[in-house]
Amino acid sequence: MLRYLTGAGFFAIMLAALNPAAAADAAAGKTKAAKCTVCHGLDGLAKNPDAPNLAGDSANYIRKQLDAYKSGERKDPQMTIMAKDLSDDDIADLAAWYSSLKVTVEMPK
Amino acid sequence: MLRYLTGAGFFAIMLAALNPAAAADAAAGKTKAAKCTVCHGLDGLAKNPDAPNLAGDSANYIRKQLDAYKSGERKDPQMTIMAKDLSDDDIADLAAWYSSLKVTVEMPK
Repeated sequence: MLRYLTGAGFFAIMLAALNPAAAADAAAGKTKAAKCTVCHGLDGLAKNPDAPNLAGDSANYIRKQLDAYKSGERKDPQMTIMAKDLSDDDIADLAAWYSSLKVTVEMPK
Repeated sequence: MLRYLTGAGFFAIMLAALNPAAAADAAAGKTKAAKCTVCHGLDGLAKNPDAPNLAGDSANYIRKQLDAYKSGERKDPQMTIMAKDLSDDDIADLAAWYSSLKVTVEMPK
């Protein structure tokens, strides 16, 4: 089958294979984020003073933190539990969702 | 001198002694945050994909993370260095500054 792929198609597939974030699905991430909203808010702004805002954080940062909670490198009573059953796809989708939220800041006078 | 204090004045002093955040100074935090802006942005929105947004995060969360970096409980190549010389007042002021920034989110259509 490979010989039917154009050069560009082959390149895109190789890129997707090398970069898990390329397969990330923000819409799927929004659905998967349902359990996150209790602390991190529907809009990614935290409702719990022990939780950070996630809206507009880079996908790279969110993915690294979820990986770190999953591996135990970073520990938190809530997040250690929340992250332990996330797949790499779940993590990529959640990172895509939260990083897609556009944030603006009003600076104090 | 204590006998010249009103009840309310005494109460305020006891409260400040019990709650380090009561002494936090957001304006001082803005000045102290100069070295943070390279990665976390002038407005608390990260310029570096390895760094999180800080704008509007709770003072409690920011304080806990800086304490954790300072103690070594949380590790990061940049933040371990940045946090090690921060005093408790520095941390309270930085937390007051970033938490004072008002954030709004535009949800995707």
